[in-house]
Amino acid sequence: MSAVSLVSALIQAAVGPDPADNVAKHVEAIKQAAFQGARIICLQELFNTQYFAARSISQPGPEPPPWAEPVPAGPTTRLMQDLARELGVVLMVPLAEAVPGGAHFNTAVVIDADGSISGKYRKMHVPHMEGFWERTYFQPGDLGYPVFRTAFATIGVLIDFDRHYPEVPRLLALQGAEVLYNPCTTVMDLSHYAWFIEQRSHAVANAVFVGTVNRVGQEPYSSGTYYGTSYFCDPSGEIIAQGSQDQDDIVVATLDLERIGEERRRWDFLRNRRGETYGLLAGSTTKKGEQKT
Amino acid sequence: MSAVSLVSALIQAAVGPDPADNVAKHVEAIKQAAFQGARIICLQELFNTQYFAARSISQPGPEPPPWAEPVPAGPTTRLMQDLARELGVVLMVPLAEAVPGGAHFNTAVVIDADGSISGKYRKMHVPHMEGFWERTYFQPGDLGYPVFRTAFATIGVLIDFDRHYPEVPRLLALQGAEVLYNPCTTVMDLSHYAWFIEQRSHAVANAVFVGTVNRVGQEPYSSGTYYGTSYFCDPSGEIIAQGSQDQDDIVVATLDLERIGEERRRWDFLRNRRGETYGLLAGSTTKKGEQKT
Repeated sequence: MSAVSLVSALIQAAVGPDPADNVAKHVEAIKQAAFQGARIICLQELFNTQYFAARSISQPGPEPPPWAEPVPAGPTTRLMQDLARELGVVLMVPLAEAVPGGAHFNTAVVIDADGSISGKYRKMHVPHMEGFWERTYFQPGDLGYPVFRTAFATIGVLIDFDRHYPEVPRLLALQGAEVLYNPCTTVMDLSHYAWFIEQRSHAVANAVFVGTVNRVGQEPYSSGTYYGTSYFCDPSGEIIAQGSQDQDDIVVATLDLERIGEERRRWDFLRNRRGETYGLLAGSTTKKGEQKT
Repeated sequence: MSAVSLVSALIQAAVGPDPADNVAKHVEAIKQAAFQGARIICLQELFNTQYFAARSISQPGPEPPPWAEPVPAGPTTRLMQDLARELGVVLMVPLAEAVPGGAHFNTAVVIDADGSISGKYRKMHVPHMEGFWERTYFQPGDLGYPVFRTAFATIGVLIDFDRHYPEVPRLLALQGAEVLYNPCTTVMDLSHYAWFIEQRSHAVANAVFVGTVNRVGQEPYSSGTYYGTSYFCDPSGEIIAQGSQDQDDIVVATLDLERIGEERRRWDFLRNRRGETYGLLAGSTTKKGEQKT
């Protein structure tokens, strides 16, 4: 049973070329968020590095990414475990994961409030398009859609491009997730038009809270301006806290988890699903002929 | 291959106690819409009757609904077939369908521009809640999620409560639907907060056009005010035409169907789905233990 009222935080930041500096900056922000009462804190996608995947495959660049490390055995996870234990907070830490054999995943590791590893999520939908050449670097995730029953709430994570798939929040909600965290790296000209539609629709459709994070600023290879505007919305899609569009920020909100039950008693969307009629959703990928071009 | 540019219309109206009057009013509106160039015209849910299902099971009331008729054999479908043929338009006509044995469905019949029947959709997700006691009257649909390859576009329909299920627009888009029509009956205090989130999110997630219709006014048994505000949005979720909140209206928009391909070339959401990992979506209904209360 989760606490009724949960204070949670999203951390958005501009990042520089030195991963160590970026980690130090985030450690400071995590401490500030905890000082403000946050019990679950989510960082932005690939939080400790500039977004190297904005670099096209045809441009010179690092391969494999120099910032990937094993998870949880690597130094960043270890440091975050110590921090979570010290502060008594749950941390969601998105970073590039290196696995034996040379593959990499775009991962988020979830650390419980005692410093133990709750588990990890590997981004399932990996983009490969102008400014987001992630398949040059990352394998598609192979761990499915786990939920994490942490000290303060049952949570799920979907990383960036995953938010374009309403299937993902539904899969997490069906397994009991109360809050969905969505660390992102996205630019104004590409996605801003949908930033207040997609994540809010996930909250409404599933009667869950959603916290979505985006970095700020410009970086050497980025195809535009990262627009921050991290926010929390409640199970009716209402935005309850929102960050700056161009500054580092810590977005803190109090999530009244009883709102989930209230919304579900009112609408009962999940109970009225007709899963037995959704078979086509779970087949293999779309046939070419169905792709409208 | 669909025409590139499609003019389409949504008709919203207040309705009175006499179905014949309501039909006559809609015939007039359909003619006006066709005169404005509309080639596909969608009416509101249960277009020819007051919303009888707002009446609680404990209140005295008609049982079975006196306005249900066979589809397509009944008089309303016949009349609409003649009208479609005369005007050369596709009509989506939502009405109460009576079937042999006494059952009823909340149906939309799709009539092609030559007056022939394209097919019908029977509302799959039937609400049963304060002000919307539809299971007193209607069986859940048993025809799945068909798409209709009409003279002017490939279209799908989802009726009212179906819009709360992102599964439905996805199932229709996967089968090639270019425009989704969503006839509704809904009141301000209940659903208005989500009216500009849900349907727009369906457009964005699937790169399709969405037209959503809602009646206007108050009726004897309704639990609130039907708020009209029918609208079309494009594949980026932008609203391109919107109707009145409290008056009869004909909402006409020109849908540039090439936008679908553009949006899909940009994002490619459908091709990057990972259907093989979505098995949980297609199981039977949510287990009781997963229902957060």
